[in-house]
Amino acid sequence: MKTTRIAIIGFGVIGRGFAEVLLRKKKYLRELGVDLRVVAICEVDGSLVNEGGINLEEALKGGSGKKRDWTPLKAVDVIKKHKPDIVLELTPGNIKNGEPGLGHIITALSNGINVVTSNKAPLALQFYELMNLARKNNVVLGFEATVGGAMPVINLYQSTLRINRIRSIYGILNGTSNFVLSKMEEEAISLDDAVKEAQELGIAESNPGYDIDGIDTAAKVTILANSLMNKRVSFKDIKIKGIREITPKAIELARKHGYSIKLIGDIKNLEVSPRLVVKGDPLDVSGSLNAIMLDTDIAGEITIVGRGAGAIETASSLLSDVLEIAR
Amino acid sequence: MKTTRIAIIGFGVIGRGFAEVLLRKKKYLRELGVDLRVVAICEVDGSLVNEGGINLEEALKGGSGKKRDWTPLKAVDVIKKHKPDIVLELTPGNIKNGEPGLGHIITALSNGINVVTSNKAPLALQFYELMNLARKNNVVLGFEATVGGAMPVINLYQSTLRINRIRSIYGILNGTSNFVLSKMEEEAISLDDAVKEAQELGIAESNPGYDIDGIDTAAKVTILANSLMNKRVSFKDIKIKGIREITPKAIELARKHGYSIKLIGDIKNLEVSPRLVVKGDPLDVSGSLNAIMLDTDIAGEITIVGRGAGAIETASSLLSDVLEIAR
Repeated sequence: MKTTRIAIIGFGVIGRGFAEVLLRKKKYLRELGVDLRVVAICEVDGSLVNEGGINLEEALKGGSGKKRDWTPLKAVDVIKKHKPDIVLELTPGNIKNGEPGLGHIITALSNGINVVTSNKAPLALQFYELMNLARKNNVVLGFEATVGGAMPVINLYQSTLRINRIRSIYGILNGTSNFVLSKMEEEAISLDDAVKEAQELGIAESNPGYDIDGIDTAAKVTILANSLMNKRVSFKDIKIKGIREITPKAIELARKHGYSIKLIGDIKNLEVSPRLVVKGDPLDVSGSLNAIMLDTDIAGEITIVGRGAGAIETASSLLSDVLEIAR
Repeated sequence: MKTTRIAIIGFGVIGRGFAEVLLRKKKYLRELGVDLRVVAICEVDGSLVNEGGINLEEALKGGSGKKRDWTPLKAVDVIKKHKPDIVLELTPGNIKNGEPGLGHIITALSNGINVVTSNKAPLALQFYELMNLARKNNVVLGFEATVGGAMPVINLYQSTLRINRIRSIYGILNGTSNFVLSKMEEEAISLDDAVKEAQELGIAESNPGYDIDGIDTAAKVTILANSLMNKRVSFKDIKIKGIREITPKAIELARKHGYSIKLIGDIKNLEVSPRLVVKGDPLDVSGSLNAIMLDTDIAGEITIVGRGAGAIETASSLLSDVLEIAR
C-alpha cells in the first residue's frame, strides 16, 4: 500500500473536521487500499511536522504533540522543504486578494504538489491561472469542497454527466442566507431578527455581510462558471444583490401567490440576486440547505440538495478529492 | 482511437432514444476520444448486423438498412457469434422471471462481454448472481439506468461519496405514481381521474398497476438495497403497498397539516408504501419527478432530484456507463 503524505494548512474548523474524519475512517481507508499520513499541520505561527505521521488525536486536543514536533516554519517553507504529496489548503479566504491561500496554492502547484482546497477566494479570483499552473506541473487542484459543502456537484458532473452539455446552472449556494429567508417566512419576522437567531445558533457570523450580501454566493458562482460552464470569469464579473432589502411583507406576498424568495446564484448569467421560486420546485428547500440545479441537454434538470456547510460534511468533499489523487 | 463495438438488444423507446443521443453526441464523443460503433440491433424477430457500423439514422427511420443487413439471428446468437465489446440490454423486463433480458445478460457476461442495461427485472431477481458472474468473467455490468432514469445516483455514490457509510436511503422512485398523487392534490380529483389524465399524457400505461401498485418502485428498491447498502435481497423480499387506496380526503387532510402523501421506497427497511412527507422537504417534489435521499454518516443527507423516465434522459445514464467501460 502506497502512503500518501498530506500537509494540512489551516487547522481551524474545517481542518479539524478533516482530521476527525480521517480518524473515524482509518479502518475503511485501509480497506480501500489507501494509506493517508498527515506529515504536517501548518498554522499562522508555525507548524507541526512529523514525517512518521502526526498523532491526530493529540493534535485535535492541542496536546503535547504540538510542543515536541513544533517548528517555526511557515506553510510555504514546509511545502518547499517537505514536499508532501498533497497540500490541503484550508485557511479562511480573503476575497480581496485571495491570501494567504493563494500563495500556498501557487507554491504547492509550482513545486509539483497536488492541492485540495475548500478555500473559495483564490479560485474565485484566479481560477484559470491556477488550473493552468496545475496542468503545466502535471498535478491536480481539487476544489469540490469550495462549492456546496458536502454536495459533490462538480465531481457529479465530471464523473457521471459529462456527456451532457450544461445549458444553465442555478443554485441556493449559501446556507446562512437561506436559513434567514426561511425563518422570515416561517415566523413572519424581520431580517434583523432572523439574522440574530442565526447568529445565536452559530449559523451566521457576527458580521453577516459575507453571507447575506451575496459575496459568498458570488464566489461560488465564479467557481461553477469556470469549472462547469467553461466561462473565463473572475469574482469581479459577477453582478451581486444580497437579501438586505427583503421585507416580511415581500415574503408574505410571494407566499400568497405560491412562491418562496430565495437568494439565487445564476451561473449562466453571472448574477446573484433574490428571486421567486415556485413552491414544490426542487430548488424550494428550506433551512440552511443548499440546492444546485444543472439544466442539461440530455438528462434534463438534475438537482442536488444537501448541507452546504459544516466541518464534518465538508470533509466528505475534501476526502473525495484526496482519494481521487491517492489512487 | 480504439473502437468500442456495441450491440443494442431491444429497439423500443429506450433503444431508439439511445441511438438518437449517439447521433446527437457524435462529435463530442470523438472529442472525448471515444469511438462507439453500433454493430448490431437485435429485435424479437431477428437482427440488423453490420460490422462496419449500422447507419443509425436509417435504423431510426426503420428504413432500407433493415432489409440489407437483416438476419434472422436471435440476440443470444448475435452475442455469441459477433462478440461485441458491450451489450446494451434494453428489452422490457418481466418481473416474474426476468426474461428475455436475464438470458441476454447471462449469455453476454458468460462470454466475457460487458453489459449496460436499463432493464430492472433481471437485477431485481438475481442481483448478486449477476454481479458475481460479471466479476468472475472480469467484465462490467452497468445498471445506472435501472434506477431513477437520468439521475446518476449509483455512480454518484460510487465515484464521489464512497468514504461515506450509508445509513438509509428513501426515494420517490416512480414518476407515474408521483404524477398521479400530485394531480390528486393540485386538482382535488380522485385517483381514477388522475390516472386517466396520466394515461392521456402518455405518462401512465393502459394497465397502470406496475406503477401505482408499487411493483416498479419495489424493483428499484431491490437494486438500490443490493448495490448501495450491501443487502443480499431479491424482489420477493420487499413489502409492497401501492397508492390505490389513497383518497382525495386523505390528501387534503395531509395538506392541511403541512404534508404531502408520496409513494416512498424505503431501501433500508425493504418497504414500499405511501408516506407523509413534510412540505418543503427535499423529497417533496411534484409532477413526474423522482427524488432519492441518501442519509450518510459524513456528508449528511444528500438528495438528488430529476426525471425518472424518458428515452432521451435514460440515454444519459446508459452513456455514462458505456463511457466508463469504453475508457
